[in-house]
Amino acid sequence: RINGERLWDSLMEMAKIGPGLRGGNNRQTLTDADAEGRALFRSWGEAAGMTLGVDKMGTMFLTRPGTDPDALPVYVGSHLDTQPTGGKYDGVLGVLSALEVVRSLNDLGIKTKHPIVVTNWANEEGARFAPAMLASGVFAGAIPLDYAYGRKDPEGKTYGDELKRIGWLGDEEVGARKMHAYLEYHIEQGPILEAHEKKIGVVTHCQGLWWLEVTLTGKEAHTGSTPMNMRVNAGLAMSRVFELVQAVAMENQPGCVGGIGQVFFTPNSRNVLPGKVVFTIDIRSPDLAKLNGMRARIEAEAPKIAEALGVGFAIEPVGHFDPVAFDPTLVGRVRAAAERLGYSHMDIISGAGHDACWAAKVAPTTMIMCPCVDGLSHNEDETITPEWASAGADVLLHAVLETAEI
Amino acid sequence: RINGERLWDSLMEMAKIGPGLRGGNNRQTLTDADAEGRALFRSWGEAAGMTLGVDKMGTMFLTRPGTDPDALPVYVGSHLDTQPTGGKYDGVLGVLSALEVVRSLNDLGIKTKHPIVVTNWANEEGARFAPAMLASGVFAGAIPLDYAYGRKDPEGKTYGDELKRIGWLGDEEVGARKMHAYLEYHIEQGPILEAHEKKIGVVTHCQGLWWLEVTLTGKEAHTGSTPMNMRVNAGLAMSRVFELVQAVAMENQPGCVGGIGQVFFTPNSRNVLPGKVVFTIDIRSPDLAKLNGMRARIEAEAPKIAEALGVGFAIEPVGHFDPVAFDPTLVGRVRAAAERLGYSHMDIISGAGHDACWAAKVAPTTMIMCPCVDGLSHNEDETITPEWASAGADVLLHAVLETAEI
Ligand SMILES: NC(=O)NCCC(=O)O
Ligand SMILES: NC(=O)NCCC(=O)O
Repeated sequence: RINGERLWDSLMEMAKIGPGLRGGNNRQTLTDADAEGRALFRSWGEAAGMTLGVDKMGTMFLTRPGTDPDALPVYVGSHLDTQPTGGKYDGVLGVLSALEVVRSLNDLGIKTKHPIVVTNWANEEGARFAPAMLASGVFAGAIPLDYAYGRKDPEGKTYGDELKRIGWLGDEEVGARKMHAYLEYHIEQGPILEAHEKKIGVVTHCQGLWWLEVTLTGKEAHTGSTPMNMRVNAGLAMSRVFELVQAVAMENQPGCVGGIGQVFFTPNSRNVLPGKVVFTIDIRSPDLAKLNGMRARIEAEAPKIAEALGVGFAIEPVGHFDPVAFDPTLVGRVRAAAERLGYSHMDIISGAGHDACWAAKVAPTTMIMCPCVDGLSHNEDETITPEWASAGADVLLHAVLETAEI
Repeated sequence: RINGERLWDSLMEMAKIGPGLRGGNNRQTLTDADAEGRALFRSWGEAAGMTLGVDKMGTMFLTRPGTDPDALPVYVGSHLDTQPTGGKYDGVLGVLSALEVVRSLNDLGIKTKHPIVVTNWANEEGARFAPAMLASGVFAGAIPLDYAYGRKDPEGKTYGDELKRIGWLGDEEVGARKMHAYLEYHIEQGPILEAHEKKIGVVTHCQGLWWLEVTLTGKEAHTGSTPMNMRVNAGLAMSRVFELVQAVAMENQPGCVGGIGQVFFTPNSRNVLPGKVVFTIDIRSPDLAKLNGMRARIEAEAPKIAEALGVGFAIEPVGHFDPVAFDPTLVGRVRAAAERLGYSHMDIISGAGHDACWAAKVAPTTMIMCPCVDGLSHNEDETITPEWASAGADVLLHAVLETAEI
């Protein structure tokens, strides 16, 4: 078993960097806080005897050598970046548990045939730069490097410029590394494990996603002196598209979700009808046909809503991955490890996207989950217990050991 | 008649300060650009022989002395601040036409019995600090000075601090000045004069307004892993309140408007259902009963919309003035001047709020309007012709002369 106290201490230590306003974290991608978190993580990795490689997307790879020079490494990790009002565990738990696996192997003097690479993927959250899981997407060949470099934050700063600015532009070609396997441990971010009183989620699938960025063009005009019948009301069109997304998700129950988290009004002044409204629709399903069906319905009907109000309409996908089925052998190994360790467990489909979804394109991959209180995540109140944290890390240790071979 | 070319040149000169992105202006209240605009206006006023007074709200008063030491001054003005994506004429036309009246009187060597005070009211737009017409509201005793000083911009900076920072905190008590009359010339900001092919709007009334700031409290949660039935969706509640505002305004046709120009999602991240949504409803009518009836309906029904979704609801008025009837004698003077000068004219109700609405509480007041292309205002494309600009300024000159007496 891993050292649960050491894991928890490291989680609390990392959480001091980029503190949030209410006990959580704001350590968004390529900010100064991100750089500080990376430096701490590097120092821990090097203290555990690992050597660092960084690729051109800023992903960090800390390697513990194996005994067989020809064996491909087993990659284990997640992400250290957070939402603007994020929790202390989303992503961080996976990275620091991977580090804890290595620390535990060091304590026990266990060497593995395959090297173990503790990984911190860059820009998993997609909060500052869409899409989410950007660096792993480039790694898997699904997203071009140039496209990633050009992605802009709301202030117009690009990923490429910010990566250089914080000093974490590496020299490795992205995706050049070959993996024997990839394992990721993450909090569930949903309510299912807690509802079923299970400590371990054996993740068999991950639902697919579309992010659809909608731009509505209205006529910027005075709220007082513009008669109702002369308005080209982009805000009203937005409301109706929100209702459409809700209706489409509800019609596809169970197994689909749809919602909107980000909205920009321009010029965003109380007495100006907006000239431009931009928002991103987030739809997901583990069922590819349903997922693409929801997208098709929205793309067919939303333009009609806008047109009826004379509002200009454009829609652009800014994030996408298909539903993923994880590697059956690795899934079986996780289930067996939970069983062997005596932890209650159940099979589960991930509702959130993860770097594992992209890694699955290039290597046998799976995930382990632990519950989180009230299913709450992307919220500073996100909470797990030290006991939950270490149970999943124990399962990770067993699954990694079996995969990296002694 | 005034010197139309000089007026137009001054308008173009002022428009160079705080340029917008598309040919308009961004010279928001108490910004560095506002300070620069104020300095230019002071230099012009002093060159025309006037002396400056500034009150504790930052309103600027440039005085041309009268011949009777006991006669109260005639105030003439408007505002130099703009929307974030504002036009070159909204407010500025009124201030620089008042200046042009004085310049013309100087040219003609005409002295008046009453002094003339060219006025630049602070924070008319209300874009950076709600409510609009803040300084004139304090002047009229309708808004407490302390309340005004505490108003915050979206970054949390207060009116009081920003006024000091730009160096325009004056020493005069706000509202200490007594007025013989107040006259304001402004672009219509609506489509009526252009539709009727009239050069001059004789403003008889101004419609009243409520700004209602709504705060919706949802549950910040992951857009992917939070099942539809566990969402506390503040964004959806917002959509439904938008529809309510639209419905309430449409049911009160003709003569009422309702809309929303400003929205803030928190944390505003694509994959986070918002924990908080704040927006401001803008409803107006020249009919007091209808205006207050719209407010009552919204305040009765919007909480139910939120409650049905489990969303927390709060509503707070952040701007208000009752409908205003302007002084019949002054209105008659404007109408007669337009007639005498041979300018086509019609009576009109102002759709927008103006500093004149507050001045009307403390002195006989009226307004003059000129058309603007397509009724477009609060838009960088706001356009008027030099001919329209000077026609209204001619009417202003006549009405001021008759009021200030030779
Ligand atoms: N795990 C997680 O929150 N990832 C961010 C991408 C997503 O929205 O699913
Ligand atoms: N004239 C003008 O646009 N004033 C701003 C206050 C309002 O919204 O009516």
